[in-house]
Amino acid sequence: MPVNLSAPDPASLLSVPGVELGIAAAGIKTPGRRDLLVMTLAPGSAVVGVFTQNRFCAAPVTLCKDHLQGASIRALVVNTGNANAGTGADGLARARATCAAVAENLNLAPEQVLPFSTGVILEPLPHDKIIVALPAALENLAPANWGAAAEAIMTTDLVPKATTRKLALNGVEFALTGIAKGSGMIHPNMATMLSFVATDAPVSREALQEILRHAVSRSFNCITVDGDTSTNDSCILIATGATEAPVIQDAADSRYASLQSAVTELMIQLAQAIVRDGEGATKFMEVRVEGGQSEAECKQVAYAIARSPLVKTAFFASDPNLGRILAAIGYAGITDLDVGRIRLWLGNVLVAENGGRAPSYREEEGARVMAAPEIAVRVDLARGNTVATVWTCDFSYDYVKINAEYRS
Amino acid sequence: MPVNLSAPDPASLLSVPGVELGIAAAGIKTPGRRDLLVMTLAPGSAVVGVFTQNRFCAAPVTLCKDHLQGASIRALVVNTGNANAGTGADGLARARATCAAVAENLNLAPEQVLPFSTGVILEPLPHDKIIVALPAALENLAPANWGAAAEAIMTTDLVPKATTRKLALNGVEFALTGIAKGSGMIHPNMATMLSFVATDAPVSREALQEILRHAVSRSFNCITVDGDTSTNDSCILIATGATEAPVIQDAADSRYASLQSAVTELMIQLAQAIVRDGEGATKFMEVRVEGGQSEAECKQVAYAIARSPLVKTAFFASDPNLGRILAAIGYAGITDLDVGRIRLWLGNVLVAENGGRAPSYREEEGARVMAAPEIAVRVDLARGNTVATVWTCDFSYDYVKINAEYRS
Repeated sequence: MPVNLSAPDPASLLSVPGVELGIAAAGIKTPGRRDLLVMTLAPGSAVVGVFTQNRFCAAPVTLCKDHLQGASIRALVVNTGNANAGTGADGLARARATCAAVAENLNLAPEQVLPFSTGVILEPLPHDKIIVALPAALENLAPANWGAAAEAIMTTDLVPKATTRKLALNGVEFALTGIAKGSGMIHPNMATMLSFVATDAPVSREALQEILRHAVSRSFNCITVDGDTSTNDSCILIATGATEAPVIQDAADSRYASLQSAVTELMIQLAQAIVRDGEGATKFMEVRVEGGQSEAECKQVAYAIARSPLVKTAFFASDPNLGRILAAIGYAGITDLDVGRIRLWLGNVLVAENGGRAPSYREEEGARVMAAPEIAVRVDLARGNTVATVWTCDFSYDYVKINAEYRS
Repeated sequence: MPVNLSAPDPASLLSVPGVELGIAAAGIKTPGRRDLLVMTLAPGSAVVGVFTQNRFCAAPVTLCKDHLQGASIRALVVNTGNANAGTGADGLARARATCAAVAENLNLAPEQVLPFSTGVILEPLPHDKIIVALPAALENLAPANWGAAAEAIMTTDLVPKATTRKLALNGVEFALTGIAKGSGMIHPNMATMLSFVATDAPVSREALQEILRHAVSRSFNCITVDGDTSTNDSCILIATGATEAPVIQDAADSRYASLQSAVTELMIQLAQAIVRDGEGATKFMEVRVEGGQSEAECKQVAYAIARSPLVKTAFFASDPNLGRILAAIGYAGITDLDVGRIRLWLGNVLVAENGGRAPSYREEEGARVMAAPEIAVRVDLARGNTVATVWTCDFSYDYVKINAEYRS
């Protein structure tokens, strides 16, 4: 059961001038399933992406990186049901054939198309099925299809993930809308994380890349479900410039900061939605580590807590097993950590200080915090001034069930 | 259910001249449970240890390290039911009081006693109960109590772990006997890993320390159950020298290599027993990575596979989900890894090569290997000549159940 997450009202999702979305059923894994999405972008759109660091990255990731080097991107093609990963040279050829077919239908060069795949890995992509279904997807193209697109890219997701907001930059209104699927980015589930976010604001590719880097480092790169990193993770940010305004060239533009924080907030919302819908999740946890010497060490400690199967099973059980959290802090890899100075809170309850349980701590107060579906863990390392926050979910019977049973 | 592991026959465990073991019921957590072990060592015994790297190390670990610096060790006191970890200055005082009581009973200095605790953390150690039960444990002292000692130190273990062998060094016979409990060393379960191994061979402290370092790096430091590192892990190697022979001073002694390999083999057996009895384990996996540029990078890849919840749930399901293994190799952190050269075997079945599934691979052959209770995974990185092996177990419903319910 997703934690405090419901499907967005498709009618609430703002269309983004310059973006059209078309969905069709290609029958890649399940006959009749609407499993194919095509997005078309107005000429001149700036498109940037960040991708999985996994060395076994999927064929579409390799092609995306390649195509983003060159010509201006005009279309995206996304399938669910098959990840086209661990498929070697043959997988690359199939992803190329898919791009070529999209390009031919739209009168583009194949390099102007970005391919994305998610689903089972090590199986050949049935690209012929995609090619056959392409005309139907193109016929379906419309600016208002964001809700249907969010559904089309789901795999083990229980709830489609989409969000939207209006942006006023120097008095001009723009739309910012994004969709996502999956369960992570740095630590994603094999179901893969994909996200596509678009605005009609005009932004240079360089500025857009920097905004994406900033937003991802504070959103998708701050979540973990199970510590596994997928082969296909991709996050794409699009600025069509379809609404008339001067181009945002760099951070010196007064609109840059507003756009950056809007993109960051929207991506945090999508990233949290992925955790709330994490496989088997029954709880949503925010782990905030402060007082570190660097943001990196705060994140390291936060991830040690957020990844620990022992911590996550204790959260599933609503058991304030503080020792497991302290142990995770202890093995996070900060070799000169003075554990005597650390303080730990569950919600607003101080639970540990001076290397042990806080004298003021009462088990019933910890239990009260743990009983809620959303739990905040806060750690003060007391050795600096930096902060990092990570979001995660608990580890339940259903996590095992889903992953023991999921395949083809 | 432990995987191919049964309780040792206590009568088969060789006594080690110079070592006596006494067990008593202190009622630390469960009334009537035989939860207290005292070991006494002959004068002149060499004693060395390796301990958890966790910064939140427990009070007894701190004291052990301290006491091993100084006077010759003559006694060990081990309790189960409470880990005396995350207990700050008060925990240290209680561990000291326990050592002092043992020392007083045996007419030793407190610094000649090593304390060990395992069980729930963040709770005050009821050291008064230990002190009350000490006389009964001392009255019980006998050389033949290894089997009862293995039982006394258990926490969530289902099966006591002990093993033994005869050693002939230059025609002189010695005993080598060891016990262990818990689920890991580098990556142990919070139930903590403890191991005590003793021989009556005469060995210098320096040589013994080197033998221990070598043996642990190939045994307890090659296992993982859930990736969590305990606060209390300790492994102690004792050489009493109670059987007359020239002292083994260093590796130049022709007996050194035989002793080292016997200790290593015995510790591998104990370490594997811990994995076979891993919480919720239904399968035992050996992950061997070869062809690396260094042993460290082989181990890094092996651990990425062995720690992955997605791999471990697939093994639980007997599902040859090769993609999850390839993905784990891909995110192991070797940035210049050429995935096109990697080969992967399940048992003796080649499953992946050239960046994808091997053409010769048949799913039914993978499924046959996965159906067995013991599964060998082999990876060739094809970039060097080093090898590392790691042992782990699968991730089952029962792992979640045990850890969601275990406490106090």
